Amino acid sequence: MPIEYQQLPRSGANHVPLSPVSFLDRTADVYGHHTALVYQSNSWTWSQVRERCIRVAHSLSERGIGPNDTVSVFAFNTPEMFESHFSVPMAGAVLNTINTRLDADTVAYILDHAESKMVIVDRGLWPVIDEALKSCSQQPEIVLIDDAFAAGEEQYEVTRKVTPYEDLVASGNPDYAWALPTDEWQAISLNYTSGTTGRPKGVVYHHRGSYLMTMGTIASWNIPHRPRYLYSVPMFHCNGWGHAWTMAAKAGTVVCLRAFEPSAFFDLLEQHHITHFGGAPIVLNMLAGVPKEQQKTFDPKIQVMTAGAPPPAAVLESMSRFGFEVMHVYGLTETYGHILQAAPQASWQGKSEAEQAELKSRQGVRFAMTEAVKVFDQDSGQQVPADGETIGEIRIRGNTVMKGYLKNKEATDEAFVGDYFASGDLAVVHSDGYIQVKDRAKDIIISGGENISSVEVENTLYKHPAVGEAAVVAMPDETWGEVPCAFVELKADHQCTDTELMSFCADNMARFKRPKKVVFGALPKTATGKIQKTVLREKVRDIVQSV
Amino acid sequence: MPIEYQQLPRSGANHVPLSPVSFLDRTADVYGHHTALVYQSNSWTWSQVRERCIRVAHSLSERGIGPNDTVSVFAFNTPEMFESHFSVPMAGAVLNTINTRLDADTVAYILDHAESKMVIVDRGLWPVIDEALKSCSQQPEIVLIDDAFAAGEEQYEVTRKVTPYEDLVASGNPDYAWALPTDEWQAISLNYTSGTTGRPKGVVYHHRGSYLMTMGTIASWNIPHRPRYLYSVPMFHCNGWGHAWTMAAKAGTVVCLRAFEPSAFFDLLEQHHITHFGGAPIVLNMLAGVPKEQQKTFDPKIQVMTAGAPPPAAVLESMSRFGFEVMHVYGLTETYGHILQAAPQASWQGKSEAEQAELKSRQGVRFAMTEAVKVFDQDSGQQVPADGETIGEIRIRGNTVMKGYLKNKEATDEAFVGDYFASGDLAVVHSDGYIQVKDRAKDIIISGGENISSVEVENTLYKHPAVGEAAVVAMPDETWGEVPCAFVELKADHQCTDTELMSFCADNMARFKRPKKVVFGALPKTATGKIQKTVLREKVRDIVQSV
Repeated sequence: MPIEYQQLPRSGANHVPLSPVSFLDRTADVYGHHTALVYQSNSWTWSQVRERCIRVAHSLSERGIGPNDTVSVFAFNTPEMFESHFSVPMAGAVLNTINTRLDADTVAYILDHAESKMVIVDRGLWPVIDEALKSCSQQPEIVLIDDAFAAGEEQYEVTRKVTPYEDLVASGNPDYAWALPTDEWQAISLNYTSGTTGRPKGVVYHHRGSYLMTMGTIASWNIPHRPRYLYSVPMFHCNGWGHAWTMAAKAGTVVCLRAFEPSAFFDLLEQHHITHFGGAPIVLNMLAGVPKEQQKTFDPKIQVMTAGAPPPAAVLESMSRFGFEVMHVYGLTETYGHILQAAPQASWQGKSEAEQAELKSRQGVRFAMTEAVKVFDQDSGQQVPADGETIGEIRIRGNTVMKGYLKNKEATDEAFVGDYFASGDLAVVHSDGYIQVKDRAKDIIISGGENISSVEVENTLYKHPAVGEAAVVAMPDETWGEVPCAFVELKADHQCTDTELMSFCADNMARFKRPKKVVFGALPKTATGKIQKTVLREKVRDIVQSV
Repeated sequence: MPIEYQQLPRSGANHVPLSPVSFLDRTADVYGHHTALVYQSNSWTWSQVRERCIRVAHSLSERGIGPNDTVSVFAFNTPEMFESHFSVPMAGAVLNTINTRLDADTVAYILDHAESKMVIVDRGLWPVIDEALKSCSQQPEIVLIDDAFAAGEEQYEVTRKVTPYEDLVASGNPDYAWALPTDEWQAISLNYTSGTTGRPKGVVYHHRGSYLMTMGTIASWNIPHRPRYLYSVPMFHCNGWGHAWTMAAKAGTVVCLRAFEPSAFFDLLEQHHITHFGGAPIVLNMLAGVPKEQQKTFDPKIQVMTAGAPPPAAVLESMSRFGFEVMHVYGLTETYGHILQAAPQASWQGKSEAEQAELKSRQGVRFAMTEAVKVFDQDSGQQVPADGETIGEIRIRGNTVMKGYLKNKEATDEAFVGDYFASGDLAVVHSDGYIQVKDRAKDIIISGGENISSVEVENTLYKHPAVGEAAVVAMPDETWGEVPCAFVELKADHQCTDTELMSFCADNMARFKRPKKVVFGALPKTATGKIQKTVLREKVRDIVQSV
């Protein structure tokens, strides 16, 4: 008879669903008097933040919003956005943060696809949400964030019935008996990502994953007690890389940032004694470009997490001069953000600046919560040798891999290959085990930290009456990292200029997604008639080099 | 129709069972060249430790040892003991470490109760295991640790067929395809604890809990990258407070310690640049008592975790002088070790040394992985007010609460009250939320960090022909914290001395459990005939005060 180890059952005492909301609760208990949030001249303690979140959770619950209901937030990195990361899950609901740069059509698509019951929107984004709601079949309750510190911006008139955000707080019961999810696999958030198809896909996170993302980030980014964190990463990107939850776990102080302005950034770092921040390479580029007299240097060093294309050596050098310890990470929306890190090795210290920059620019090795990241030959399904040369696809296994794409079984099935999530990113493995991305999934353009689907741009181009065929690929750009470059074959007997097509795109989709260059001519095709993007990329390379 | 959030299933890609073995695998991948283990003049890298563990796991598996099979280890804190924390779970089996101070009878009971398939034993403990196996119905394979650095100890002759530990390593396949458990609820270890009954109870840990213990300890003990840890806590206590797994997760260097010797301890701290260690208050007491000329002071400070009775102010003062940052924690075998910590608050810094010592001596607030610790009135079931006065029972909920007691449904059912594990410890809650233990569960005596069940001592006393009735309670002791004090009523017409009874106990149970004082006389009883231990405790108080 087998020994009864397996007969000892789970109970409410020894098996509690993992949820990052637990971190807020503990920190409010233990460090309740500590400053949790700072925004301009306002600040709130952890105890106050918890109370505000419980009140909002109660207000949601009073409206019948609970498990598997979506609450969308279309807002900047203000305290309301931070609070939503706790209040919405406290009500059991699913937080859907929407990229503030999206166009009304895409926002409408998201609200409908997510079946949003409520949308919390910043007044500064009113025209977009108003336009979006016109074409929406979903009619969510609108909650308005009226930011007193946005006085310098245009004050759009609100033309629909809205609930002020502070009413959710004021009318909520601070003694509301919120509860952890009964199942840690329950959805906690929904993040739309531009995939390789035109319409964004809804990536679903679960409570377990967000809890473990926090724990692994603390362990592998080596976050000390009570960090002081400047929230420069938009919280609509992978829930701000999960850092709202992470800062709660470490009783940090989070400084909110409505809009990134490079010249004011140094003052903020100094004023708030910031110890940690994150940002896309474009943020680092812009900081490096700030006039010397506005730059500041810091000691002790500030820990900086950056993701995306590796910053150029010159930028890294500036970072080093500022006293920024930059850690390059890699991840996708589908993996809750960072799952690889260019973890520095003691052996690197003897090397030259250039060698170190090269080593640090690799995407690196896995975080503590990441179970496996391997590079596979896509044809043979075998791991590539660690020779720094053989290219394969990055595949990931771990508890911070999404549940799947919402209402998109086909894409979900395609994303999971065996026991791995297939990233679509191509990489090599170096002899020290560090992974380096060699090529992005072919259809994605990363511009200023934003994903742009080439297919979406193509689809917009196809709407123009003069366009016969179109293909869009990434073009390297000093400011944005990459920008879309369109190759267009006009219909016979039609005429059109490049500026005309660029304006057309700007008017018919999020402006930042428009092509920055249009090249006319016949498109190269395979024997079976498929457009050869590889050839187009070579053309782009020639164009860039000839400049 | 509800939105399909819940229809996105778990898969091998996005749901991996949590197990602390993952930390060894990652650290060996990422920091393979770093020193993992140091023992005397030997050392091993993380890569080497992983290989040795895989080899041992393979050897276990070749013997048919797998999930739900028990492997007992009766050994000191040598590298083999450390490795067992990974190799045994890698084979899917359950690690049962046995207190090296136990007597043969209890060891035999454990081997039989655990149905051990193998016992890994240090030659220095041979007489005990040999004696134990004589009365065992279980006949496990014996694996011998022959420690070259135990040359100064008595070299017991091995009188049974044994497998040298290094044979397990040498014959194992380094490419063995070990696997994580298929279910994170699977048992990882079995720790026997002296409960309130005479026979020890087998506390079962699961992989999930040990993983989360590690993550929460990193977050709340604020462990930096690559700590240098001196393993002074016996690994047979709650798996050494889980620190073997924690050090793997942080790529630490672990210095093994066969036996604690206070005078050599300072040299070890200095020689190995130790940053962290743990120890029962007795360890701190003994360090404070080391002759001044052998003491050393450290800067930067060494982080010290201590559990059990709070160290006296004088000891804390010595610790502070040495440069030890002592954090007082609280936990039980049933909670994988520490679940409360006297987390220091910034507001304490302005206070006097004495006030700080008082604040730090409390058991404190919960660790990051601990979901809830509350103090309940045992009669009403209500939480006691946070007034620092009202006493109630500490109850705990979290993922580091045991699965239950092995093959002891009655004790398991009794231990779980509603959604909590009932600790049996009595405490108050202060106005700042910090918990302070006021009284131990009435039947347990904590002597030099070891639990002694008063019932077990009583049972031994009852075996003496002259003893009519016996009751044992704790007596405060400067050296050991507490020692057993026996109250004995002799049978009519029988005579016996106190030294005779003490010798009898020393000969018939683990020596350290013998009473240090025996008081003769009639025992106080309730109306229903139950011995009133409360009255005996008052008597002890009078005895101690009159000394």
